[in-house]
Amino acid sequence: MTSYEQYKNITQKAADLQFASAVLGWDQEVYMPPKGAHYRGQQLSTLASQAHEWLTSDSYGNTLQDLASDKTLNEEQQNNVRLSHEDYEKNKKLPSSFVEELARQTSISFDSWAKARKENKFSIYEPELAKMLSLKKKQTELYGYDKHPYDSLLDDYEKGLTVAILDPVFEKVKEQLPPLLRKITNAQQVNNDFFHKHFPKQLQWDFSVNVLQKMGFDMQAGRQDYSEHPFTTSFAPNDVRITTRVDENNFSSLLWSSIHEGGHALYEQGLPENEYGLPLGSAVSLGIHESQSRLWENCVGRSKAFWKYFYPILQQYFPAQLDNIPVTGFYKAVNKVQPSLIRTEADEVTYHFHVLIRYEIEKALLEGNIPVKDLPGAWNDMYKKYLGISSPDDKQGILQDVHWSHGMLGYFPTYSLGSFYAAQFFEQASKDINDLHTQIESGEFSNLLHWLRTHIHQYGRRYQSEELCKKATGRGLDFTSFMNYIENKYTEVYDIK
Amino acid sequence: MTSYEQYKNITQKAADLQFASAVLGWDQEVYMPPKGAHYRGQQLSTLASQAHEWLTSDSYGNTLQDLASDKTLNEEQQNNVRLSHEDYEKNKKLPSSFVEELARQTSISFDSWAKARKENKFSIYEPELAKMLSLKKKQTELYGYDKHPYDSLLDDYEKGLTVAILDPVFEKVKEQLPPLLRKITNAQQVNNDFFHKHFPKQLQWDFSVNVLQKMGFDMQAGRQDYSEHPFTTSFAPNDVRITTRVDENNFSSLLWSSIHEGGHALYEQGLPENEYGLPLGSAVSLGIHESQSRLWENCVGRSKAFWKYFYPILQQYFPAQLDNIPVTGFYKAVNKVQPSLIRTEADEVTYHFHVLIRYEIEKALLEGNIPVKDLPGAWNDMYKKYLGISSPDDKQGILQDVHWSHGMLGYFPTYSLGSFYAAQFFEQASKDINDLHTQIESGEFSNLLHWLRTHIHQYGRRYQSEELCKKATGRGLDFTSFMNYIENKYTEVYDIK
Repeated sequence: MTSYEQYKNITQKAADLQFASAVLGWDQEVYMPPKGAHYRGQQLSTLASQAHEWLTSDSYGNTLQDLASDKTLNEEQQNNVRLSHEDYEKNKKLPSSFVEELARQTSISFDSWAKARKENKFSIYEPELAKMLSLKKKQTELYGYDKHPYDSLLDDYEKGLTVAILDPVFEKVKEQLPPLLRKITNAQQVNNDFFHKHFPKQLQWDFSVNVLQKMGFDMQAGRQDYSEHPFTTSFAPNDVRITTRVDENNFSSLLWSSIHEGGHALYEQGLPENEYGLPLGSAVSLGIHESQSRLWENCVGRSKAFWKYFYPILQQYFPAQLDNIPVTGFYKAVNKVQPSLIRTEADEVTYHFHVLIRYEIEKALLEGNIPVKDLPGAWNDMYKKYLGISSPDDKQGILQDVHWSHGMLGYFPTYSLGSFYAAQFFEQASKDINDLHTQIESGEFSNLLHWLRTHIHQYGRRYQSEELCKKATGRGLDFTSFMNYIENKYTEVYDIK
Repeated sequence: MTSYEQYKNITQKAADLQFASAVLGWDQEVYMPPKGAHYRGQQLSTLASQAHEWLTSDSYGNTLQDLASDKTLNEEQQNNVRLSHEDYEKNKKLPSSFVEELARQTSISFDSWAKARKENKFSIYEPELAKMLSLKKKQTELYGYDKHPYDSLLDDYEKGLTVAILDPVFEKVKEQLPPLLRKITNAQQVNNDFFHKHFPKQLQWDFSVNVLQKMGFDMQAGRQDYSEHPFTTSFAPNDVRITTRVDENNFSSLLWSSIHEGGHALYEQGLPENEYGLPLGSAVSLGIHESQSRLWENCVGRSKAFWKYFYPILQQYFPAQLDNIPVTGFYKAVNKVQPSLIRTEADEVTYHFHVLIRYEIEKALLEGNIPVKDLPGAWNDMYKKYLGISSPDDKQGILQDVHWSHGMLGYFPTYSLGSFYAAQFFEQASKDINDLHTQIESGEFSNLLHWLRTHIHQYGRRYQSEELCKKATGRGLDFTSFMNYIENKYTEVYDIK
């Protein structure tokens, strides 16, 4: 075996275990009977620690070291080695005793969060969140950072992302979104009451499958199932699973979850199969991943063009429910904007205030500027400030998200980045594909998918987000694209003069 | 960590990987999209080879060696160590180069078998089967054996089983079954045409779940799904999965598969949870496993008492299909005997000729008494001799079973052992539980399950089959129990004087 083959062998074996974990995780959310939970956790932990052991072994490090100066490698190989080497160096910074402590605290924090949520009482969770926070602070020290401790955590989800990059972006959110939101809330409100008629489960499902297939989701290389919280997971580029949820009395529950996860899945199905398990066969970052889901969910799935094609079809599925609703009324309902308490149910405009609040809190926590015990108050102050509402209880407020209990600080901002990248990519695709709008109006998505495959999917992790965005659109992340997108859309939806 | 904890740690980590493989294997048969097959194979192979590496490592061997003379261990611990040591010694006999060659040939043989089957042509498969056979012969040499090479292969599926034990059992099959079969075929034939009315899928499913729950299958610790070939797999004693199949025009397709797999599943759910992944937490052998499935499927699920309780319920599910069929007619239909070509569709009497034929062929192959190319002829000669029929083609003859392509020689006899043990266990349970018959007539199975839990399930691999059978019934395997069971049953069903 050459050194490159040795490298590839270990990296792919670790990926085999990680993909196996993904299968176990998928089953856990989708089909596992309740009593299966106990040993499932142990099995996942064994898989993770063995993969970690391989990826942090000295022999793996030595192989990567040798390959770093190997002139015989081609460009793809060099890129894989470079990225794996970066991963290796980062992984090595966390001693296994710390990794184990973090895993233990994650399990404890999660249980405590779930209990606190059930009893609607933040104080139950507070001490475990505080311990988790001090571990995350320790992690920033172990990783090291130049300017802000938060940078080292952001990097876990979005390589190269820093507070210095994010602050100006969220400044624009704070400056530019409130005036638009005020105009919307002052306008004539949109009615979406008909979403709450009875929509039989199987028909909702069938329609979503129809949409997914039109989008280009390959059902021979993936499938859709139900789970409590929709998600996408991949076991290889040719086995990508999505889930959705259903509410027979709320039409908005299933379909856009399917489209959203379908967007993630198209990315995973589009990763180069011959780079299985290697960096060039993996998604670049959470922000770019989210850009794919949101482009399909929002820029496409909540567009007028999309519903020009699909609405007559949808009416055939649900004649009694929709026959007296014109397409314009439906389109407006799909894009209703309203400040609300729950992030995951928020519309395209108010969503980013939810993220902004979490971003500011996470930064302040790491800076030591908010004591953990004051979080419910700080949370409510910010909701009042940015959205004019406040939570009646902890459950709908500070306890609504699972992320912190899992130690995932730095994750939230990638949700907003996803929307911003999505708007910018879609804007560029609309320029590059002459009649994209007309194509969507006739249910034709293959050129859009081809654009995404060509400019995003095929590269895996070869370029970091910012570089990839430049290659695809000629410039780095630019909030203007998103702002233009929502201003145009909502000015029309809300008939704003 | 004490040595025992070290031993337990490695053994359970290997079990974690093996159970993870079981999840991947289950998904592969039940939900995996077609294109997922390629990398799934590689992922399974990585999991298997890492588990094998741990279980054959020198350090594991040394730990077992130390523990063998450790006087501080309690009885359970001693038994675990003893059994793991035996496994270790056996595993070590196969060099990894041989294990890899066997895995490679298995994959090639399986593909070739599938192709031959599709094209209905044994000659396509013949050269790969010959190669597989020579590997299996090599394996018998590597394992070593006292009397017959076949013994070392039988031992893989049923520890301690030998030709010297099996020959006399199958002699009895050859002596005692043909006279009964002749009487049955000369009697008035049973009509089961109504099985081929239309039985809607969902109703068949619902009825099977009703039966499984009555049997004691814990749906919080397991579930049922559909697959092409029904099977049972376990991810831990509290997550046991069964599958079944359905044919809306053949009532016999779903239900008895469910009951059969349900019997396997009750065994897995009954293994001691605190011995997770250790020998005392594992099933003793294939024969004993099969005894559990066949006891439920045949001794219970095809009994008059069972249908006295369930038939009125079944009629409520299928009034149009069953209203003019009396319970006696139904009971007889359930037990129809007829020589046929396909083993998996055979009844309780003719089934054992199918196994006998495979047993005689496997022995002869290992002795070198049948050249591989003559197999189709030898197969047909035996079917003519024992069942009076012969296969019109290879597909329904020599190519019907997958086992040999997987290198599984020595597996078939355990199917018959399962039936024989089942009859003996059921006979004993009927003695030990005073009114078992009446209990079954009233849909009460908990005492029967308790008997099985107490005499079989709780021990894991602590006793070998023969010893376990003696403890449970006072004597080793005794064909008389089975013969009495089928003679009584079929004399009545076929009204034989």
